[in-house]
Amino acid sequence: MEGDTVTERPPTGDATGPSAPRVRGRKPSKGDPVVHRALSLLDAFSAGRRSMNLAELSHRSGLPTSTTLRLATRLMEWGALERLPGGDFVIGLKLWEIASLAPRGHGLRDVAMPYLSDLAEATRQHVLLAVRDGTEAMLVERLSAHHAMDVLYRVGGRLPLHSTGVGQVLLAYAEPEVQEAILAQSLVREPEHVPVSTAALRRTLSEIRSTGLCTFRRTVPDPLVSVAAPIRNREEVVVAAISVVVPEARAEPQALAPAVRATARAISRALGAGSAGSR
Amino acid sequence: MEGDTVTERPPTGDATGPSAPRVRGRKPSKGDPVVHRALSLLDAFSAGRRSMNLAELSHRSGLPTSTTLRLATRLMEWGALERLPGGDFVIGLKLWEIASLAPRGHGLRDVAMPYLSDLAEATRQHVLLAVRDGTEAMLVERLSAHHAMDVLYRVGGRLPLHSTGVGQVLLAYAEPEVQEAILAQSLVREPEHVPVSTAALRRTLSEIRSTGLCTFRRTVPDPLVSVAAPIRNREEVVVAAISVVVPEARAEPQALAPAVRATARAISRALGAGSAGSR
Repeated sequence: MEGDTVTERPPTGDATGPSAPRVRGRKPSKGDPVVHRALSLLDAFSAGRRSMNLAELSHRSGLPTSTTLRLATRLMEWGALERLPGGDFVIGLKLWEIASLAPRGHGLRDVAMPYLSDLAEATRQHVLLAVRDGTEAMLVERLSAHHAMDVLYRVGGRLPLHSTGVGQVLLAYAEPEVQEAILAQSLVREPEHVPVSTAALRRTLSEIRSTGLCTFRRTVPDPLVSVAAPIRNREEVVVAAISVVVPEARAEPQALAPAVRATARAISRALGAGSAGSR
Repeated sequence: MEGDTVTERPPTGDATGPSAPRVRGRKPSKGDPVVHRALSLLDAFSAGRRSMNLAELSHRSGLPTSTTLRLATRLMEWGALERLPGGDFVIGLKLWEIASLAPRGHGLRDVAMPYLSDLAEATRQHVLLAVRDGTEAMLVERLSAHHAMDVLYRVGGRLPLHSTGVGQVLLAYAEPEVQEAILAQSLVREPEHVPVSTAALRRTLSEIRSTGLCTFRRTVPDPLVSVAAPIRNREEVVVAAISVVVPEARAEPQALAPAVRATARAISRALGAGSAGSR
C-alpha cells in the first residue's frame, strides 16, 4: 500500500492560475501565527508518515514539544487529529468528513465515479482521475483491478504534469503562464531519471490539444501505456483528466482511445459541458 | 448528487469509545480560541452548503465579518479553503490531500477498494463501506451502478446506527456503553418516521452478533434490502462494515449473503485479521 508512493514530493511553491488560488509554503503572517502553527502540525503528515508520536510530530513540524502538545490537543478536540491507543497521532475522521466537501476532490469524484467504474470494468487495469493543483497534478481517484500491474500513485497523492498521461493533458490545457513556468524548468522524467526535451514536450502538448487525447509511455519500473483525455466543465474549461493505464505488452492504444474519449465526454456532460444549446 | 443527502445531520456531542477518541461540539478552551475559531469556519460547510460568500460564512460560523475574513485568509494561504472566481469560499484541495491520510477514511478504503469493486460488479447495485464515529456511522465509500436505485447517503456523510444495515452491524459490535447510549434514546426510524422498539433492536443486535450478518429492510422511499457484514482488524476488533443495497423486488438476501460475507472476510484478512497463526 505504501509501496506505490515513491514519487511523493514536497509541495512546490509556485502554484499559479485560477485552479490554484493559493500559494504554498508562504511564511506565516504576523496576524495569527497560532493558526499557521496548528496547520503546520497537519503538514507533518505524509503518505510515508501517517502516524507519529509527540516527539516525531514536534520534530517534523519544527515546534517545541509543549507547543506541539497544546496545538495537537486543540486539533484533537475538533477532530482534525485522533490518537491511537499506543499514543501516536493520526489524521482524524472529522477532517476527512469536512474535506469530502471539496468541490475539486470528492465533488468531482462523485460525478465521475459511475463512468470510471464502467471504464475500469471494461479495461480491467487502472483508471485514474486527476486535477491540476498549481504545477502538479493530484490524483482524485484510482480504480485498480486486483491483478493489475503496480502503479506509482495513490489517491490524494501528487503526480508530475510533464511525465504522466493525465499530467500532460492537464498541462496541455493549462494557462500559458503555467505552461511556460513548467517548460522553463529543467525537467526530468521519473523514475527513469532522463532529461525531458522542452521542444519535444511542446510538440506533445500541441498534439494533445489538436487530438484531445494523450498516449504516454513509461518503461520503468514496468513498460506501460497511459491513454488520457480531458474533462470539461459547463464553461468548457478543462478541469480534470482521466486515463487508463495498461501494461505495454497488452496495450492497444487505438482500441482504448474510443473508450477513454467516450468516458471523458460522458463525465464532461455530467458536469454540464456541451449544455449551451441542447440541455 | 445533492439529492442523496437528506439524512445529513449536525454532529452529535456524545462520541465515546476507542474508535471515537474525541468529543465533538466542545466549547472552545481558553488557550487558543483563534484555532477553534479558524476550525469553526470549516464547520460552516456541509453537504448542502459547499460554497459560501463572506457574509454567509460569517453568519454560519457566528464570527464577525472582519474576523471571518482574517481567518479565512489564513486558511486559504494554507489551502484549507479556496475561493471561486465569483468570490465564494469552498473547501480546498490541500485539506482533501491531508485528509486522505486519515487511517479510518482513505486508509481503510484503499485496502477495501478492490474487493468492493468485485462485489459491486457482481451485484450491480450499491455497495457501502462505513465506520462508526461515536453514535453515528460515516460512509467511507459507496460504489453505485448507473441504473441503481436512489439511496440516501453520500461518501463522507453520516448514517444512523439504528436504521441502516451497516449501522446495525457497527452498533452490534460497539462497546456496551455505546450500545446503551443509543438504546436509551427514543429512536425513530427515518425516513418512515416510525418509532423503533428498543426490545426489537436488542434482539436484532444479538442476532447480528450470532450470525455475523445483518439483513435490514426499508420501505420508504423505495422498498430495499441491505445485507451487511462486519470487517475486523488484526486485533479481531470490528472496525468497519460493508453492505450491498438492492431493491426489494429483486432481492434474494440468501443469495447475497455469501458474497457479502466473503467480501467482508477478504477485507478483514487484508487488514490482518485471522493472521495470528497462518501469516
